[in-house]
Amino acid sequence: MPRRAVVGDLPTPALLLDLDVLERNLDRMAERARALGVALRPHVKTHKCLEVGRMQLERGARGITVATLPEAQAFADGGFTDITWAFPLVLGRVAEVVALARRITFRVTVDSVAALEVLGASARAGGVEVHAWLEVDSGHHRSGVDPHSAASVSLARRLADERGVAFDGLLTHAGHSYHARTRAERAAIAEAERAAMVAFAALLEGDGVAVPAVSVGSTPAMSAVERLDGVSEVRPGNYAFYDFMQVAAGVCAVEDCAVTVLASVVSHQRGAAHVVVDAGALALSKDPGPQDPALSRGLGPVVSGLVGRRLEPAVQVRAVSQEHGMVGGETAGDVEERFAVGERIRILPNHSCLTAAMFDRYHVVRGADVVDEWVIWRRR
Amino acid sequence: MPRRAVVGDLPTPALLLDLDVLERNLDRMAERARALGVALRPHVKTHKCLEVGRMQLERGARGITVATLPEAQAFADGGFTDITWAFPLVLGRVAEVVALARRITFRVTVDSVAALEVLGASARAGGVEVHAWLEVDSGHHRSGVDPHSAASVSLARRLADERGVAFDGLLTHAGHSYHARTRAERAAIAEAERAAMVAFAALLEGDGVAVPAVSVGSTPAMSAVERLDGVSEVRPGNYAFYDFMQVAAGVCAVEDCAVTVLASVVSHQRGAAHVVVDAGALALSKDPGPQDPALSRGLGPVVSGLVGRRLEPAVQVRAVSQEHGMVGGETAGDVEERFAVGERIRILPNHSCLTAAMFDRYHVVRGADVVDEWVIWRRR
Repeated sequence: MPRRAVVGDLPTPALLLDLDVLERNLDRMAERARALGVALRPHVKTHKCLEVGRMQLERGARGITVATLPEAQAFADGGFTDITWAFPLVLGRVAEVVALARRITFRVTVDSVAALEVLGASARAGGVEVHAWLEVDSGHHRSGVDPHSAASVSLARRLADERGVAFDGLLTHAGHSYHARTRAERAAIAEAERAAMVAFAALLEGDGVAVPAVSVGSTPAMSAVERLDGVSEVRPGNYAFYDFMQVAAGVCAVEDCAVTVLASVVSHQRGAAHVVVDAGALALSKDPGPQDPALSRGLGPVVSGLVGRRLEPAVQVRAVSQEHGMVGGETAGDVEERFAVGERIRILPNHSCLTAAMFDRYHVVRGADVVDEWVIWRRR
Repeated sequence: MPRRAVVGDLPTPALLLDLDVLERNLDRMAERARALGVALRPHVKTHKCLEVGRMQLERGARGITVATLPEAQAFADGGFTDITWAFPLVLGRVAEVVALARRITFRVTVDSVAALEVLGASARAGGVEVHAWLEVDSGHHRSGVDPHSAASVSLARRLADERGVAFDGLLTHAGHSYHARTRAERAAIAEAERAAMVAFAALLEGDGVAVPAVSVGSTPAMSAVERLDGVSEVRPGNYAFYDFMQVAAGVCAVEDCAVTVLASVVSHQRGAAHVVVDAGALALSKDPGPQDPALSRGLGPVVSGLVGRRLEPAVQVRAVSQEHGMVGGETAGDVEERFAVGERIRILPNHSCLTAAMFDRYHVVRGADVVDEWVIWRRR
């Protein structure tokens, strides 16, 4: 780090992480989990960053959640000792799972007999105990077993009985909460998720299968859920950074968004309705943002100034190619005499999780000061 | 590398690079450039891979083209000595440009007075000569100066006269060739690109500004262009790998596609119209592929078998989340009894350039044999 670096001096494209906003987001979600009486196991796929994960642990998180094995390995190397891989077990990588289970409390996710059998056999052969959640479909219909099926009860029982496997309980992700448009819809999805899980846990308990824990959650659901009785822990991730999708959905305000992409204007041709910046598909991702055209700001809105938290009303990223971003409005007048070649602008990403995965590091800022650089563990 | 590794043993997700197909693609484009009487300066943003770049040089490429400074730095470190950065100069990074120009023949791209002035002053202060192309808008309307404007003639003259700057000539990218639907449309765009550049070069020459070279090109244009009189070099990139977009556009056949994503089936719930694989937005990218719904195969079609080059007719990647890919057809019958948990499948990416940038390495294959691992220089 150079001494007293400021945002305006950074090479572009760069990913800025606003530390004041991050700290507030982490504080609030920690407080929300406490108020709801559940443990917090944040999903670190959003930030892939050891420093942010440590801030979450310092605020009381029980452990962390990852989406990939390389994420698990990076965080285990970084000293994290309790990690859930909330993704259906990849059978071809079970040897790596066993190796991780030797070093830390590693919890995998299972929703099939095939996965259970491979996991159990590998754990016993490796002489370790691997923790496993049974993934349940609480309405998202992506993965997870049907909580109304007899086969699901049978699979839960086998998981609980399998030698080499420590049954952790039931896990779900109501990912359709991301498509809800109102707080009431989010609250309803969150309650349906809770109710489905609690009912299935009761069914299992009634059938003699002890359910040690119930794990649910997403950022949109956590923003609206009213009670979490019967739930042990929640796994939101996006809340650390938020993004324009969450603003458009009404989950947060623009001033809650912690990451922005710093880009330079590199071309501005007379008469064009856009300027070109050095942030394209490989800086912003191609996430299209809100599905509702009335809410869409293209590939991302522009934030005013280098430290402000207000969106520019008339311009947005209208299109991207691999490294080019086309920033503009409806007419040439929207950009004329406003953006000079060499000027830096900031873009609020539609989807912060995907955008963070495009960069190697965060430039951590407080106001206009760059106070640190943190690695993004995006290896795969 | 383990000895005698085979595709079926690789950890997933993995990016497979078919060496037989790659070699044929590189041979054909080298031959096509020779037949058209132009030099080839392939764009390496597609592959970001030193080994592939060396194969291109061995087949006669004049040098390479990059999209970012980190790409230029990686290839310069890898021994490449003649690199064009085909992107409007990022003024805040001109010190890095000057540093590169000390080590190699580094050619930047300029389309504004502001860029020219910063470049000239920095080159002179650094005591080096930096090569520069004038970028021209030949119809894509993204960046580049208007070839019909007096201001463009004046900028060309200033570039040619600027101390510290070696004027290389005129450069353009007719990126709208990617949206053409027929060979005739591509040929027309390519001819319009050529004609605009040759006319502007003649205008400049008539005005006393020597134009050392004219650089054009894209993979779609090169697939259809009939003549390149007056053009010095071409810069296609995608042709090394091709992808489903190019198949859908009629530029190539499925058997010309050199990269596929190897994924594992991780979840298959009874009655679901999809299975889940471990290749989502951060393996495939979110590139939506062909705009024409009749040609779309969602986030990418599935390729039959681990070594074949035929597309599965009934299934495709229907949706992705960060790490999940939902592979299916219209009904549960399209996946029932066809995809078992643990099975590996291959996906043909919509856009190979973006997909390659999601991975750290290629697993290089010949048939079912994994013969090498090559680094993808995706740092930013």
